[in-house]
Amino acid sequence: MSHVIDALVEALGSRVRVGSDIPSRNHADASGLKPTAPQALILPQSTDDAATALRICHEHRQPVVTQGGLTGLAGGAHPQAGEVALSLERMSGIEEIDAASATLTALAGTPLAVIQQAADEAGFLCGIDLGARGTCTIGGNVATNAGGNQVLRYGMTRRNVLGLEVVLADGTVVRSLNKMLKNNAGYDWTQLFIGSEGTLGVVTRAVIGLHPKPQGLQTALCAVGSFEDALVVLRRFQQAHPGRLLVFEAMWREFMTVATEICGLAPAFEDEHDVTLLIEADMGADPAGTEAFSLLLGEFYEQGLIKDAVVAQSRADRNRFWAYRETPYEYGRFLPEEIRFDVSVPLNRMTEAVAHLRREMPKQWPDAVYVVFGHVADSNIHINVAVRDMDDAIKKGVQGLVYDLVSRLGGSISAEHGIGRIKRPYLSLSRTEPELALMRQMKQTLDPAGILNPGRIL
Amino acid sequence: MSHVIDALVEALGSRVRVGSDIPSRNHADASGLKPTAPQALILPQSTDDAATALRICHEHRQPVVTQGGLTGLAGGAHPQAGEVALSLERMSGIEEIDAASATLTALAGTPLAVIQQAADEAGFLCGIDLGARGTCTIGGNVATNAGGNQVLRYGMTRRNVLGLEVVLADGTVVRSLNKMLKNNAGYDWTQLFIGSEGTLGVVTRAVIGLHPKPQGLQTALCAVGSFEDALVVLRRFQQAHPGRLLVFEAMWREFMTVATEICGLAPAFEDEHDVTLLIEADMGADPAGTEAFSLLLGEFYEQGLIKDAVVAQSRADRNRFWAYRETPYEYGRFLPEEIRFDVSVPLNRMTEAVAHLRREMPKQWPDAVYVVFGHVADSNIHINVAVRDMDDAIKKGVQGLVYDLVSRLGGSISAEHGIGRIKRPYLSLSRTEPELALMRQMKQTLDPAGILNPGRIL
Repeated sequence: MSHVIDALVEALGSRVRVGSDIPSRNHADASGLKPTAPQALILPQSTDDAATALRICHEHRQPVVTQGGLTGLAGGAHPQAGEVALSLERMSGIEEIDAASATLTALAGTPLAVIQQAADEAGFLCGIDLGARGTCTIGGNVATNAGGNQVLRYGMTRRNVLGLEVVLADGTVVRSLNKMLKNNAGYDWTQLFIGSEGTLGVVTRAVIGLHPKPQGLQTALCAVGSFEDALVVLRRFQQAHPGRLLVFEAMWREFMTVATEICGLAPAFEDEHDVTLLIEADMGADPAGTEAFSLLLGEFYEQGLIKDAVVAQSRADRNRFWAYRETPYEYGRFLPEEIRFDVSVPLNRMTEAVAHLRREMPKQWPDAVYVVFGHVADSNIHINVAVRDMDDAIKKGVQGLVYDLVSRLGGSISAEHGIGRIKRPYLSLSRTEPELALMRQMKQTLDPAGILNPGRIL
Repeated sequence: MSHVIDALVEALGSRVRVGSDIPSRNHADASGLKPTAPQALILPQSTDDAATALRICHEHRQPVVTQGGLTGLAGGAHPQAGEVALSLERMSGIEEIDAASATLTALAGTPLAVIQQAADEAGFLCGIDLGARGTCTIGGNVATNAGGNQVLRYGMTRRNVLGLEVVLADGTVVRSLNKMLKNNAGYDWTQLFIGSEGTLGVVTRAVIGLHPKPQGLQTALCAVGSFEDALVVLRRFQQAHPGRLLVFEAMWREFMTVATEICGLAPAFEDEHDVTLLIEADMGADPAGTEAFSLLLGEFYEQGLIKDAVVAQSRADRNRFWAYRETPYEYGRFLPEEIRFDVSVPLNRMTEAVAHLRREMPKQWPDAVYVVFGHVADSNIHINVAVRDMDDAIKKGVQGLVYDLVSRLGGSISAEHGIGRIKRPYLSLSRTEPELALMRQMKQTLDPAGILNPGRIL
């Protein structure tokens, strides 16, 4: 046992686990990388515990990987050999809901779903929502600047964070549990830590701004002939009903084919269309709003902008519409090994991106199954590619094709899942050398010994 | 003439002015500090020019004050003796409006009003709006993270910025002219510079996200019996019509008294009320929305939540309602010298704050005229205090009263105007020592020679 582990055990007692006392769940995140046992697992019960742990690790130059809900796909929370894991799982709970300020203060290890439910019970909505809500934690959401389904309306996690408490690499605690929308007293240092994937500090508490609860949710599936038409639908909807659109998801033809022919869902429409949209809006408590939603879709149909549409009349309809969008979670049952991409492409280059994939994919890998879908209003698309007998060469080839394309079109190699370990080799495709130098400077300043999540991002 | 001025003139020719060639407008900003001629005025016409200037100043450790529209109240752009001024006024113009991405790219010296008009002509709305729109520049808005009237709906400047180009202290140009809502490829370094008041780098270009244009603007003046009732009105309006509220300004009793008795406006209502609200919402293109606005106010009246209300039936009505809110711009004509505060107070402490002022102001300065008003939905209030024969002792006393109060209630000494030189002595009231240490670390890293806006913020 090394000196640093001894020091940690002496300071934190049973809040430090070693060897077979470390649960296997802490050996891996959702990235698919090979599970690796950390040297020790630290389970702080307070900010002081976390500060003590980091102070000791800093003194011993001991690398630390921070863990939240372990749902990340980029390997940010996945242990590497020799690292100590710091899991925030015991720092869980909502400390305050301030109805007057419309804010919620929670410990970093609180699962997102717990926060969503508490906000709901207090008559508010939490603007952060993603598929992993039951498992992911608010600390992880902050660390990765998580996106999700409602970014169009409520923004990324960054926009929902009003205040933070962070433990720096050397154990210093910095706290600004600000509840105010406006606070320009000096640098907003909290911005540094949002989206830094645990490489600059460990988030221990967050103040989240809450939103009014939607009162008149309307959901529709719409078929359009092209992505350009989808964009016109998006802009005209926003013009007609400003602030009401919550969800605007696009699923390209190949996606719907996999949903029906491979995953077994019933076709959404009689004919095949190039893009199917899942649209959700909060039309307000007034029944006139509900009506206006269907009326506007009717107008789009008459104008030839949308080719077909169905509006949900019940919760069952809504679930049925969302089932298409959620088929990727089922791919594991139907498809050979797949690679999942999370990228951004400027909206005016999106059609070019899809056309390139349609041209190159079948040429290079004739049996490849590929789908394109995503939160297009945010420029964010997901591309899943499954190839039979996928080996490292094929994997590299597919990654090269996608990342080169994204880079050439001025997109980003990470829209919402971060860089972690997995995308690190590709970061220079989305960032220039002066940008990377600036990032390295920030890292060097805040974590001079390089103990926090080393090898992630930079 | 010093070596550094020689080097600047050699590199930049007529883009450097000295002595009487420096217009007096560049001797001061709107802070009211004593006008001071800078050693030289640099007028870059390109990012390269700005980079050349900073490289030379950095080599010579020459302090630089960056100037935009010079409308700031905190002294951030006001020259100090020995400083060279870098004015972005010749780097003005809109470079692109990308309708598909709903973004606008502009040079930093572009006046906000020019950006607003270009957005409008392209069918969009710029979410940043403030009183100084005709003069202030987008670079200054970014540098101060400007707030304004529509923060409730569109957020501070930070939320409207998608990409930046910045020249660092040593002349390095860092560029991320990102147009995408989602881009998690490494640290979002642009956040560092937003609100840093020119102390970490010079903003030369910005990509601004645009919004759909409001289609059904409704404006009302409402009288309420207490600030608590105002908050209920705010939350219920947001519940009933999510995403529609644009403006929610509160004006306390003393404010309305000054507006009518000193500035000569007609009383808004027959009776006096504790708080008058100016409410503006975009109810959408549908006439049902317009109707819903008045209906909801009617309900509030029946419930006793609002004591009286008028809804604008014309543009003239709207201007008449806004005239109350804009009386502070006229105070100079009617009142002795005044101090203007821009602070944040958590919403659940607001009544306590006003009660404290009402108790202490007349006790300490019996002839003081003070008003409280502001963007309360953002926790932001302005407090203006006029005292006859104001001297430094009175000034210090009033500042002490207000800043101590704000600090005790967990507020912020700067909501939207920044710290600059004027609020620097009070920064520790809103920030803890670990926060200030972190800010100093950021400054030291990015501007090791301390040449950028020295003495501002820190």
